[in-house]
Amino acid sequence: MKYSCLLYQKVFIFLVSSQQITDMKLHKKKKSYRASNLPPGTMAYKGKKQTVTTNIEIVNYSKDHYKMFHSNNVEDAFNFKGNDHVTWININGLNNLEDIETVGLHYNLHPLTLEDIVNTNQRPKLEEFENYLFIVFKMLYIKNDTELHYEHMSLIVGEDYVLTFQEADGDVFDDLRERLSTSKGRIRTQGSDYLMYTLLDAIVDNYFTVIEAFGDRVEDLESALFQSESANNDTPGVIQDLKQEILKMRRSIYPLREVINRMEKTDCVFIEEKTHSYLRDLYDHIIQVSESVDLYREMIWSLMDMYMTIISNKMNEIMKVLTIIATIFIPLTFIAGIYGMNFKNMPELRTENGYFILLGVMFVLFIFMLIYFRRKRWL
Amino acid sequence: MKYSCLLYQKVFIFLVSSQQITDMKLHKKKKSYRASNLPPGTMAYKGKKQTVTTNIEIVNYSKDHYKMFHSNNVEDAFNFKGNDHVTWININGLNNLEDIETVGLHYNLHPLTLEDIVNTNQRPKLEEFENYLFIVFKMLYIKNDTELHYEHMSLIVGEDYVLTFQEADGDVFDDLRERLSTSKGRIRTQGSDYLMYTLLDAIVDNYFTVIEAFGDRVEDLESALFQSESANNDTPGVIQDLKQEILKMRRSIYPLREVINRMEKTDCVFIEEKTHSYLRDLYDHIIQVSESVDLYREMIWSLMDMYMTIISNKMNEIMKVLTIIATIFIPLTFIAGIYGMNFKNMPELRTENGYFILLGVMFVLFIFMLIYFRRKRWL
Amino acid sequence: MKYSCLLYQKVFIFLVSSQQITDMKLHKKKKSYRASNLPPGTMAYKGKKQTVTTNIEIVNYSKDHYKMFHSNNVEDAFNFKGNDHVTWININGLNNLEDIETVGLHYNLHPLTLEDIVNTNQRPKLEEFENYLFIVFKMLYIKNDTELHYEHMSLIVGEDYVLTFQEADGDVFDDLRERLSTSKGRIRTQGSDYLMYTLLDAIVDNYFTVIEAFGDRVEDLESALFQSESANNDTPGVIQDLKQEILKMRRSIYPLREVINRMEKTDCVFIEEKTHSYLRDLYDHIIQVSESVDLYREMIWSLMDMYMTIISNKMNEIMKVLTIIATIFIPLTFIAGIYGMNFKNMPELRTENGYFILLGVMFVLFIFMLIYFRRKRWL
Amino acid sequence: MKYSCLLYQKVFIFLVSSQQITDMKLHKKKKSYRASNLPPGTMAYKGKKQTVTTNIEIVNYSKDHYKMFHSNNVEDAFNFKGNDHVTWININGLNNLEDIETVGLHYNLHPLTLEDIVNTNQRPKLEEFENYLFIVFKMLYIKNDTELHYEHMSLIVGEDYVLTFQEADGDVFDDLRERLSTSKGRIRTQGSDYLMYTLLDAIVDNYFTVIEAFGDRVEDLESALFQSESANNDTPGVIQDLKQEILKMRRSIYPLREVINRMEKTDCVFIEEKTHSYLRDLYDHIIQVSESVDLYREMIWSLMDMYMTIISNKMNEIMKVLTIIATIFIPLTFIAGIYGMNFKNMPELRTENGYFILLGVMFVLFIFMLIYFRRKRWL
Amino acid sequence: MKYSCLLYQKVFIFLVSSQQITDMKLHKKKKSYRASNLPPGTMAYKGKKQTVTTNIEIVNYSKDHYKMFHSNNVEDAFNFKGNDHVTWININGLNNLEDIETVGLHYNLHPLTLEDIVNTNQRPKLEEFENYLFIVFKMLYIKNDTELHYEHMSLIVGEDYVLTFQEADGDVFDDLRERLSTSKGRIRTQGSDYLMYTLLDAIVDNYFTVIEAFGDRVEDLESALFQSESANNDTPGVIQDLKQEILKMRRSIYPLREVINRMEKTDCVFIEEKTHSYLRDLYDHIIQVSESVDLYREMIWSLMDMYMTIISNKMNEIMKVLTIIATIFIPLTFIAGIYGMNFKNMPELRTENGYFILLGVMFVLFIFMLIYFRRKRWL
Repeated sequence: MKYSCLLYQKVFIFLVSSQQITDMKLHKKKKSYRASNLPPGTMAYKGKKQTVTTNIEIVNYSKDHYKMFHSNNVEDAFNFKGNDHVTWININGLNNLEDIETVGLHYNLHPLTLEDIVNTNQRPKLEEFENYLFIVFKMLYIKNDTELHYEHMSLIVGEDYVLTFQEADGDVFDDLRERLSTSKGRIRTQGSDYLMYTLLDAIVDNYFTVIEAFGDRVEDLESALFQSESANNDTPGVIQDLKQEILKMRRSIYPLREVINRMEKTDCVFIEEKTHSYLRDLYDHIIQVSESVDLYREMIWSLMDMYMTIISNKMNEIMKVLTIIATIFIPLTFIAGIYGMNFKNMPELRTENGYFILLGVMFVLFIFMLIYFRRKRWL
Repeated sequence: MKYSCLLYQKVFIFLVSSQQITDMKLHKKKKSYRASNLPPGTMAYKGKKQTVTTNIEIVNYSKDHYKMFHSNNVEDAFNFKGNDHVTWININGLNNLEDIETVGLHYNLHPLTLEDIVNTNQRPKLEEFENYLFIVFKMLYIKNDTELHYEHMSLIVGEDYVLTFQEADGDVFDDLRERLSTSKGRIRTQGSDYLMYTLLDAIVDNYFTVIEAFGDRVEDLESALFQSESANNDTPGVIQDLKQEILKMRRSIYPLREVINRMEKTDCVFIEEKTHSYLRDLYDHIIQVSESVDLYREMIWSLMDMYMTIISNKMNEIMKVLTIIATIFIPLTFIAGIYGMNFKNMPELRTENGYFILLGVMFVLFIFMLIYFRRKRWL
Repeated sequence: MKYSCLLYQKVFIFLVSSQQITDMKLHKKKKSYRASNLPPGTMAYKGKKQTVTTNIEIVNYSKDHYKMFHSNNVEDAFNFKGNDHVTWININGLNNLEDIETVGLHYNLHPLTLEDIVNTNQRPKLEEFENYLFIVFKMLYIKNDTELHYEHMSLIVGEDYVLTFQEADGDVFDDLRERLSTSKGRIRTQGSDYLMYTLLDAIVDNYFTVIEAFGDRVEDLESALFQSESANNDTPGVIQDLKQEILKMRRSIYPLREVINRMEKTDCVFIEEKTHSYLRDLYDHIIQVSESVDLYREMIWSLMDMYMTIISNKMNEIMKVLTIIATIFIPLTFIAGIYGMNFKNMPELRTENGYFILLGVMFVLFIFMLIYFRRKRWL
Repeated sequence: MKYSCLLYQKVFIFLVSSQQITDMKLHKKKKSYRASNLPPGTMAYKGKKQTVTTNIEIVNYSKDHYKMFHSNNVEDAFNFKGNDHVTWININGLNNLEDIETVGLHYNLHPLTLEDIVNTNQRPKLEEFENYLFIVFKMLYIKNDTELHYEHMSLIVGEDYVLTFQEADGDVFDDLRERLSTSKGRIRTQGSDYLMYTLLDAIVDNYFTVIEAFGDRVEDLESALFQSESANNDTPGVIQDLKQEILKMRRSIYPLREVINRMEKTDCVFIEEKTHSYLRDLYDHIIQVSESVDLYREMIWSLMDMYMTIISNKMNEIMKVLTIIATIFIPLTFIAGIYGMNFKNMPELRTENGYFILLGVMFVLFIFMLIYFRRKRWL
Repeated sequence: MKYSCLLYQKVFIFLVSSQQITDMKLHKKKKSYRASNLPPGTMAYKGKKQTVTTNIEIVNYSKDHYKMFHSNNVEDAFNFKGNDHVTWININGLNNLEDIETVGLHYNLHPLTLEDIVNTNQRPKLEEFENYLFIVFKMLYIKNDTELHYEHMSLIVGEDYVLTFQEADGDVFDDLRERLSTSKGRIRTQGSDYLMYTLLDAIVDNYFTVIEAFGDRVEDLESALFQSESANNDTPGVIQDLKQEILKMRRSIYPLREVINRMEKTDCVFIEEKTHSYLRDLYDHIIQVSESVDLYREMIWSLMDMYMTIISNKMNEIMKVLTIIATIFIPLTFIAGIYGMNFKNMPELRTENGYFILLGVMFVLFIFMLIYFRRKRWL
């Protein structure tokens, strides 16, 4: 499983052709917020510039009715307005500023809302306007089993419509589409507020999936550390990567807590009373996600301690080997040195069995040393 | 004493046949929350799938009346309703979704409530509905003296009934059953709210038992560390296990504080005024439990420091031995080396007692070194 | 000065014969909260079981009147009730449950109150009832200059009476008794609320004494650490003991802050308006005590850092000695080894002064090394 | 890129001639707050004393009108007052106290406001007066690509005027001036409150730029640490510098959060309703800035851990080399020592192939050692 | 610059003759709070007992009038009361309890107020009484450039009087006296509340001075640490001292924040409306002081990390030297040992140039080693 391991840099995957984020360090780019020579309220897309056509998905449904089609012309979506059905317009691609502006004009969106929709650096937040609710957040999902994608996403709920703006085509709403088209569950009988809830629910459910996949990596590393021979000089780097990843996830997920909390408590007229209990449930889920994030965060931090302990233990092991060898052989070498001296008068040298006696003495000393180290539990 | 040492993984023991959790690492499984292709409000059991029949225990009592029986058919429990007695229905086993749905229909439970009952990953919470209170929490108990069980449990209190949903058969309510059947204490004279209180009280009392057993392990490890020779390379792993266990307990116990606090303050009509002072007492107990948890948590963290200190001290010990040996014998070996040289003209070699004088000098040097190290307190 | 160094274990000194807590590790016992097979509201004494008679001290006073006597029969105290005097009943010994129940009946105490009075594991708290205020806390005092005692104590204030329940005979109220009997200060002219204040004031004043004695130990250890040769392998154990002691004190003292704060703000009718300013002063004192506790706590934690630094410095010292010796003599030994070789053709060996020249060269090398190490500030 | 790395010292760049802050340590000066022999409300400029003329920039505009000129006489600015246009007076230079006092008199500013304008040590704050809003903050910008400047800046908003006080000439408002003069965006159609917002917006946008430049340095250091050979003894110093820089930035940026938050919530009459949504957006941006600051702060702290780990790994590497060499050659040297002894009777010495056999034995021992270390993964 | 470095011990300088606190360790004394055998509300001076006369300074002023004189009789001050002037009575010396009691009686002060005035262990606080405001705090100032003094000080403000109680003669009010006598600034035209503000302002301004002097010491130590050869075994002790000093300052300064904050918000009648904006400014200053304190605190903590890193780097340096020497010479010594053996049949020994060839081989080995270490960047 492979993740992008950057912390704060925003590298996004854009429109239609999804891309693998192989190496953060290579994709490093000058991050920029609002280009500073633009007046406030000006839309400026921060992602990768690509000349692609915006892919627009339009769904219109009521209890008995369901229509869905794709289009490149955003104005196709406006015909449904006003006939009591719920319309969901899902716009994939944020660099076609004209289309977004058209939508903004049609639905009477505030200029700052449009700016936030295309500003991929915007942190999650909720804004209540007179005629709509505006929610910005990050969609996290895993593609091809190994690539983690962070996608900037905005959601606007009005009386009878939901607008979603994504950076690229892939998303986590396929089950929702299935339910909508087959009229499974209660979704077709409910209003735009319930659609908003199911969209957010799908987002939060995917957070669980992402966190679990991440947790598996943390736990694998932990098991590996316990078999200490697999701890090597690269481990701190791996831990540092995990640290930064979890911090990035935290930054993406945490602010959504507050968003959902405030949404549950809002007295906005689009949110029906019965939807509130669903939002409360959703809040419960996001709390659970963020607790998991904190848990893994704490685990990663304590992995570093583990690693330091393992290094210290290895050092002890090395020092023991050195000390045992040196402590045994240095004195023996000294004794051999004594009898290697060239003094004329060294009586021991002339005895018949001096050499063999000395070898014996050395052997006894050697055994004694071994017993000593055994007692110190160094062997 | 043996515990499962996992942190976040939910491994549960199911229905009737209890099982020992010997090794977390082996039971590791893909955790999953709500299966993402299900609409919200859909029940999906997250535990181990087993084809077992649900074991239902039904108790009906009033001041003068007591009846208890087991059944496999949940509808047997509904006959008692409405006749002013208190009915306690205890359902063991969460994978028989039909039975739970039957109960849900009978007592008019919200779909999200049913979803939370069978979702073993649900964190502790309190939900107030118009016609009932819904509480989810974890039951911790020790079985066969050594196995710690975490069981997902839900409790629903209505005007004259209490429903409890457990994952498996074993529980901590045997004393309560005894009191109910023998009319000991004031329980038989009180309503469903007091039954709920006694059930929660039994849960919290068991938290104490579990924490104490855990505390004994922490204190044993601490005593062992003080006798530093028993600290070995496995110790960090043991500490890491304790860390994760206490974190898991904390996650199970902490949210219940808020639950009980909110319950004490609720103005729900089922909770009589006089029960509030009992709930206040219960809140007091759960605070005490969570303080113990924090205490042991802090102790475990400082054990790691202890261990690092012990390692450092050992290293110092090792280095001292090496240094003493090397510092004594390297100079002596050098001297022996001098007189091992083959220079033609080395007057000392030809003296009668040169060899003995040299041995004497070496001995003096040796003694001097010993004194030096003694003074440095290395010996 | 000698303290018990346990953290959470509750070892108490009981009734009449006080005992020294010499070694925590030996007195370790299975801690238990409410015996789980008892219904809530049942009194169960948690301390050491001893068959002793309860020692009851009864004081009755008004501005002009003072009577004090000891008794073994709690009913002797009830005669004074109702005649406008203040009655203080001080019960020493919690294992005579009958006496306590008699008092409870007479003063109409709630069953949970009686349970908390004898439950020595109860954490400090304040409970307001219609007819009395109930306060539980820990009395800390030093006996025979060296033994620190933790005593579970409860205090009940009614309109014209104060009840105190202690585990054993010794306490910190001797000055108060003196003032009562001699009519010193304003105590005799005030009601039961002022008596309660003076009792708590005596408790908090003793906290100061205990904390100061503890602080002296911390500061002594710190001074000792600064003279680093006195740091040895036992030091981490001593620090660990201090850590656990301060944590235990904190647990005993901290909750009393909240108790006194709530008491100051209560609108309970027994607490006269003018007593509130005394309670504010008391709150001030308990804040000061807890600040001292936190201060010593922080100091102890940083002592561990100090110790680690000292160990590291020692290691450096050891390594320096080893390195100096090895670096000086290993090269010299090598040179001696060269001229110990037995090659036939080694011209230097045959020169007249080769040996002496070599000795000179070695000496120069030796001096050079010394200068090198001096410059590196290793010598 | 070059920053000043001081923490708390206030070194400012003054009036007209800007200066590079090359080395903090050299510019260290006695910091002083209000000269203590002055009564409160007395203006005392804390920056570098320089005899320069104040450079005043005056802009007067309405929807259809725009006039801008520079002057050295502050009274030139007062002619515009009262004719319904917005006047922006930008005063560069805080040491010409007379001019500032003239402005203060004209606009009826409180003495404490004047004191805060020239007190470069004042932390960011918002003060609401009856006739104006007063905001103090720090302007951070990068000059010549490498020099980070901290400039003390004050902003006063009245009904139809905005006053800004800067320490020196350079600022971050050039784009704003361009928009004002060319009537780009909605700025010319709005009142003084919107001008205030755009000024603050430019300030906060520059915080992003500064933080990003700082972040690049942190990330570069991190990448360098991962290639551990580039970690050297200077690294802790570099990390320490980064620590202090980020702390200084934090101190400059954080209080502005509260300022903008309070400004958004103020009911001050100068702030029109529609400007509030812009201020909310601005608050969002400052939150994002401060999150980045915290992120880099956490990263820097964990870099120190990284560095310690790298040092430990290096030490292990060194010890391994030493141990391998010593463990291989010390026993071999001992063996050679044995046969260097001069005993008369050493049978091995007289065998024909003893020497070659011994060399073989040594070689086998050598190979054996290599295999041993290979197995221990030391080679 | 020299400070007393104690943490919690209260060593004060008393009455008239000021004293230098040279060494905390020597002045260590049994700290005591209220002598426990005294009833509450009893004055007990906690400082050093000295038989000195109290030095009383009396200032009486109005817009046009100013009179100041010293006296030993506190009753001299009471003549001015009631004639609409402001009277400032400054009492130097707290051990003359009778005088303080006289003042207390005259101004109708609460007994607990008198107790707090002389209790030098009292932490900073504000008490509002019906007829006066009572503020306790610590005055910090530097005397003779190097001695830091902590003085317990109380301030009482009534309608037309201000009472200050100091431990000793020296204080920080000389500039204020000058302004009072020369009618500089607005002080003479204001009431007693403004005098209180200016007194507190002088106190807080001196906190800045003290903190800056302390900060210089921290920064000097930091610069010294960067030149790592100046880090020695005493450094941890110095850092520990700084830690304790900053903790002591924090304890003295922090509570004053809350005091001033509450004072700003009080609706006490003595504090005129216009004084509130001055108090807000003062609050701003004390916030700034406490931020500086926190900053230096964080710096000191990270200095310890710095020091540990420096020690580790030194250790690495030492180990490198040892390893290089050992790795080069141990193998060479082994080779020399080989040819020092006395085998009969060692062909190399008999060759003409064997010795010189061997020397060459050794030299090549030596060079090879050097290159190896150079490549590892150890040289």
